[in-house]
Amino acid sequence: MTHRNIKLGLCGFGVVGQGVLDHLYRKRSALREQLGAEIEVVRVALRDRSKPRDIAVDDAIVTDDPISVAVDPEIDIVCELMGGTDRAREVTLEALKKGKIVVSANKALLCDHGKELLGVAQKFGGHLLFEASVAGGIPVIKAIREGLVVNDFSSIRGILNGTCNYILTQMTNEGASYSDILVQAKELGYAEADESLDVDGIDAAHKAVVLAYLAYGKWVPFDAVKLLGIKEVRQEDIRFAKDNGYAVKLIAEVDRERASNALRVSVMPTLMPKVSPLGSVDGVFNAISIHGDVVGETVYIGPGAGRDATASAVISDVVDAAKLLIFGGSEGRFPILNPNPKNGGEIETARPCEIRSRYYMRLVVMDQPGVMAEIASILASHEVSLASVSQKEVGENAERVTMIITTHVTSEEAVSLASSDLSELATLEEKPFMMPIGDLS
Amino acid sequence: MTHRNIKLGLCGFGVVGQGVLDHLYRKRSALREQLGAEIEVVRVALRDRSKPRDIAVDDAIVTDDPISVAVDPEIDIVCELMGGTDRAREVTLEALKKGKIVVSANKALLCDHGKELLGVAQKFGGHLLFEASVAGGIPVIKAIREGLVVNDFSSIRGILNGTCNYILTQMTNEGASYSDILVQAKELGYAEADESLDVDGIDAAHKAVVLAYLAYGKWVPFDAVKLLGIKEVRQEDIRFAKDNGYAVKLIAEVDRERASNALRVSVMPTLMPKVSPLGSVDGVFNAISIHGDVVGETVYIGPGAGRDATASAVISDVVDAAKLLIFGGSEGRFPILNPNPKNGGEIETARPCEIRSRYYMRLVVMDQPGVMAEIASILASHEVSLASVSQKEVGENAERVTMIITTHVTSEEAVSLASSDLSELATLEEKPFMMPIGDLS
Repeated sequence: MTHRNIKLGLCGFGVVGQGVLDHLYRKRSALREQLGAEIEVVRVALRDRSKPRDIAVDDAIVTDDPISVAVDPEIDIVCELMGGTDRAREVTLEALKKGKIVVSANKALLCDHGKELLGVAQKFGGHLLFEASVAGGIPVIKAIREGLVVNDFSSIRGILNGTCNYILTQMTNEGASYSDILVQAKELGYAEADESLDVDGIDAAHKAVVLAYLAYGKWVPFDAVKLLGIKEVRQEDIRFAKDNGYAVKLIAEVDRERASNALRVSVMPTLMPKVSPLGSVDGVFNAISIHGDVVGETVYIGPGAGRDATASAVISDVVDAAKLLIFGGSEGRFPILNPNPKNGGEIETARPCEIRSRYYMRLVVMDQPGVMAEIASILASHEVSLASVSQKEVGENAERVTMIITTHVTSEEAVSLASSDLSELATLEEKPFMMPIGDLS
Repeated sequence: MTHRNIKLGLCGFGVVGQGVLDHLYRKRSALREQLGAEIEVVRVALRDRSKPRDIAVDDAIVTDDPISVAVDPEIDIVCELMGGTDRAREVTLEALKKGKIVVSANKALLCDHGKELLGVAQKFGGHLLFEASVAGGIPVIKAIREGLVVNDFSSIRGILNGTCNYILTQMTNEGASYSDILVQAKELGYAEADESLDVDGIDAAHKAVVLAYLAYGKWVPFDAVKLLGIKEVRQEDIRFAKDNGYAVKLIAEVDRERASNALRVSVMPTLMPKVSPLGSVDGVFNAISIHGDVVGETVYIGPGAGRDATASAVISDVVDAAKLLIFGGSEGRFPILNPNPKNGGEIETARPCEIRSRYYMRLVVMDQPGVMAEIASILASHEVSLASVSQKEVGENAERVTMIITTHVTSEEAVSLASSDLSELATLEEKPFMMPIGDLS
């Protein structure tokens, strides 16, 4: 067997890039023995040479021009670890046009440009691998594409953002407000200085779009994702959850409606039963529950972010890429199996009237006669049936009181319309806050 | 690209064989589109044609001679779904000697003959794939070999037998005895008529040996597995667990001791914290927790057995095999990456003095003065330190009383020696029952 070196170019040398270089070096003997070939990092493109880094790299291989790495004829595999969707897209396109294999951790890039990039890969005989883009170190993309290949998926649900899960866990454990915990999270490095990408659910939505593509072969536009972050979650919600055997989790969900075959992608704070796999995963961990028609439910839990977890996933793609290069056939590269194109062709986005769930509603109302009647009447008019109502005494002089309602199964359309009508009431102090209740299997 | 049909032979047509045929047929269009080739079952070997089966198969392709299927030059992939370790080994050897790819779900075969079979595969250019042999439909073997390829594993722990987990869950939920629940389990089809393979932990031990091979490259002999089944678990143990935030689970464990690099494989009823991933998985589900040095802890949960879950895993191997055949290079087959042989060469089996854990001990003693002093003295003599003691009042006329002890961290050797000494006491009514407490990370 011809042994050869596999030449790797790293575009981006931040935390993840350093992690990849570090672990490829530490494990080089084991990887060499397994593959029968060496994986050699021959170029590293980074923006700022003067920036202090934990991992040293030979200056001779450093450049500030990632495009030169992408088009370098010596380089077999390009790791796009730059982040962002402009330069990263250019670099990825240039590498794919040279028929290279690109390994990326960039969920935003895939969400925005995945269709274009995979099309270019196919056209020029390259590949785009992205295990590290969803759920960090948990090999969930490989599970969906390969381990569960015979399955059609009715739903995928996940906790896909560790920052949000950390904040919600701490709000639960410490009884503190969202803002107080956010400060703490930033101090500990669990949230960025600009937290919006995480707490607004955008990062989770990017990942959900990637999962929807893997499961159904369709690239759902980001704007079609039903999206709500965690900023409006309050202690009243957390306490209700605790008292009733639930946990508040930011759940990304990809569902295919059985009747219509329509697709639904959402990211929303959700009440999950505390005993369920997703309800019980706390802190910075991620968790994904997949319903396949042959195997049933499988659940995957692990670190969703962080230098080493992400590097582990990037390296699994690098090794898969190396296998393709070392052992691929004379007919050219061996294709990564594409998600079932049959599904991709037919699927529409689900309409709100098709989305069925139970809901939690938090209403802050003026403490006056007739309020309950108005609320009940509006819900009834939309055929939203009450499962529970909770309003606690707040003292004779309070003006406002919080009312918490849970509904029986209804449609998203019905609760949205009810919520709009409720918002019109003079007696409602603020817009209702709603969460789906995730206790239907 | 040359498209060709991949020809499959099924050896064994029981529940799993029927599931494989069924799902390959139902999903044939999707699989064909993804692979660019057809997977065709061309021969089915079964023992008894007259046996009623759920899935019909064309009589023209049926034979009672699995060896003829194994050596048939037309057949590319042989599914060994016969079970057992004699005929299944012969059939597998014959197929591997022809350089074919064999897909098996047979944990006992791998445990007993894995080293020989993989050696033959390597020698003749074939492959042996066995995703379905451990944890049913959960793609955990693929996770270990591929998704987590850069990791070295310090420990793998799992609930690997659904029958035992079902029985222990029901004993917990219903407060019933082991024997009563066993009867129920057989009626529901969760236990075999001869339950010993499951309840004695033998099935879990076979799977643990396979996991140890995948993680460390070493085939630990079955006899070296520290093995205890669930037959001695009583309601007192279940109640203690419930009262103290634990669950009794049959845990298979593969550990590498840090200091000595020695390997330890065990299957034992274990007290797991109820809030831990393994402590919270109930019923017939399996769960595996893997500690990798780069990624940290990842957990995989799903159906561990059953027709469809097992078929899902077999088919994932069949598709991987088809990819090898369709796209493999001119240098021959592309090898499945072998577990790190460096580890395989150096690892010894851990000695009991190296195994460190906390322990649960249930003692049934004569209700007499001096008993506690004798017990405490024996434990102290082996430097086993008590963390908790529980003896409940049983009424003035009772002769025997149950004492439950938990220890601080100690060695397996110390508790074994203490247990032997305790068994010698005249005041002990029966041999002590011991379980490790799985609350160390």
